[in-house]
Amino acid sequence: MNDLKKYCNRVGTVDREVVSAVRKRLDSQTKPQGSLGTLEELVIEISAIQRTDRPVCDRKVIFTLAADHGIAREGVSAYPQSVTAQMVQNFVNGGAGVNVLARHAGCDVVVVDIGVASDLDFSGFIARKIDYGTGSFIHGPAMSREQALTSIVTGIELALEREFDILGTGEMGIGNTTASAAVAAVLTGENLRDITGRGTGIDEGTLEKKVELIEKGIERNQPDPSDPVGVLAGVGGFEIGGIAGLVIGAAIKRKPAVVDGYISTVGAMVACALCSNVRDYILLSHRSAEKGHEIFAEYLGKKPILDLGLRLGEGTGAALAMEIVDAALALYYNMATFDQAGVDGKL
Amino acid sequence: MNDLKKYCNRVGTVDREVVSAVRKRLDSQTKPQGSLGTLEELVIEISAIQRTDRPVCDRKVIFTLAADHGIAREGVSAYPQSVTAQMVQNFVNGGAGVNVLARHAGCDVVVVDIGVASDLDFSGFIARKIDYGTGSFIHGPAMSREQALTSIVTGIELALEREFDILGTGEMGIGNTTASAAVAAVLTGENLRDITGRGTGIDEGTLEKKVELIEKGIERNQPDPSDPVGVLAGVGGFEIGGIAGLVIGAAIKRKPAVVDGYISTVGAMVACALCSNVRDYILLSHRSAEKGHEIFAEYLGKKPILDLGLRLGEGTGAALAMEIVDAALALYYNMATFDQAGVDGKL
Repeated sequence: MNDLKKYCNRVGTVDREVVSAVRKRLDSQTKPQGSLGTLEELVIEISAIQRTDRPVCDRKVIFTLAADHGIAREGVSAYPQSVTAQMVQNFVNGGAGVNVLARHAGCDVVVVDIGVASDLDFSGFIARKIDYGTGSFIHGPAMSREQALTSIVTGIELALEREFDILGTGEMGIGNTTASAAVAAVLTGENLRDITGRGTGIDEGTLEKKVELIEKGIERNQPDPSDPVGVLAGVGGFEIGGIAGLVIGAAIKRKPAVVDGYISTVGAMVACALCSNVRDYILLSHRSAEKGHEIFAEYLGKKPILDLGLRLGEGTGAALAMEIVDAALALYYNMATFDQAGVDGKL
Repeated sequence: MNDLKKYCNRVGTVDREVVSAVRKRLDSQTKPQGSLGTLEELVIEISAIQRTDRPVCDRKVIFTLAADHGIAREGVSAYPQSVTAQMVQNFVNGGAGVNVLARHAGCDVVVVDIGVASDLDFSGFIARKIDYGTGSFIHGPAMSREQALTSIVTGIELALEREFDILGTGEMGIGNTTASAAVAAVLTGENLRDITGRGTGIDEGTLEKKVELIEKGIERNQPDPSDPVGVLAGVGGFEIGGIAGLVIGAAIKRKPAVVDGYISTVGAMVACALCSNVRDYILLSHRSAEKGHEIFAEYLGKKPILDLGLRLGEGTGAALAMEIVDAALALYYNMATFDQAGVDGKL
């Protein structure tokens, strides 16, 4: 049995027993039952995940995994590949969108080089480079099967090595909507044109080329939908595997995994394909503006918490969703009950 | 010219000139253009409202207006009328949902008795009682025309008397979804059954009765859709008028008015019917789970910021939306530009 299988076997089921106690407290609070909607559902889900009616999300962390993609050399992005490494520097300096939103949410950002195409001559990130970017999947597999396994196990270990109450995912990698669309097309069997979008903002012609290159990559590598590691190796990316691992790692630790946008959701889909128990540990942070994300949400069976037209990635949506989670727990702990407040109940 | 007309004449247009400078800064930041979606739009809208490219939303306040409704005596709510006064006590004690969420957002809550049906024997709220609840609109007008005007002017003055950068609306009043549905039906001309919901959680039979009572009230009072003050007098409520006033008051001060849920949105509709310039000062905080709210949002031409299945009122949705506004401004001020971060631009 390989390491990945051993890890997956450690993901247990969530605790549905605890839900009745949580719902009882929510229903005793001064509001019509269920009137706080998603906020109440979040408290219930997190309680089941953490197996307690006293859930805590104080220690928040977002892992932002950076990697490069061989397919970027074929011209599928509006930005040059150099931006991946430059943005890692920006993350480390605290100037990127995810940094600002994570600070606002009281959340740490852990930056990881899991496969940037160049050597980074600064510090402040975790170095877990698997390779200098993936290969271009139109000429062969994006990575070896061994590398695909390593990317997932790296994500798991990153999660296991750190103390946290709630984990968020995030990524950076020029070309990674292309790899994500390819992985998702294979896993879901959906039409590529329904799930491939404009990423950082490509024009109609480049979008057409993007779709054709993905078709070519799938044709070339013939990934088997029932073998998620093979799919990742064939047309995926290191950060996509790493995110799958982060989600599995959070589940092993019985902590919620707040999944960011388009690319992160594909990572979560890989995690669920590897280990179906993982699904119950996932909170989908937001509905991405990138085409296809709604279909991914359906595949996971998850309703996004927010719908703000975001399409930046990095973990920005995860950071915002953590504020909503925080607010939900504040209500659970701090709202008065009907008894405490001397408010009459239902007629 | 009455006071209300004088106030409405003080509402100016927002500043569309400032938008280009704001958009220029947003586009210089390290992200694909527009990739922060609604967050970018919020910065732009608030800049136009505050007429500056350096918008500020530090001083946050939510006004929670409480009032009773004669129609509640006909049995349209799942809760007894006593709950209105008891919840005012709960607001003052800081134990209600809006208190918890406002604290979480760094926002003050100002509680106002604008028409509670009993004398309140405690302090900590602003006393602006117009009457001991409205009359039951099936037997005659809910209030006099003079009272309707007073309710709106009271809201305006509450806003004008206080220093703030951003205002949120909120309310409490057993029976107030009934009055709100009645006002909205007249203003929009929509079918009552499409915009009347279960409020605090009434059953099918009570919902049927609620619709019939509203029909009766509209039949009895014959409010003229082109006369919002008359509509308010006929079938409205003191807090609905007060909320209309708060929104107008915020607009006079050139500050954004974050409108809460179902009842608050009807208040905002009254404000817009009185003074069309007001519309540009409104941020719709969330999509309420109460039936009909989507139709109200369309009437206002506003996309709700959040969609969390809330149906509590009080200002809870406004408080949550203020956190999103805060996050949007944090991004605007704190994200690095491409130049600062040394990140390459578009190809």
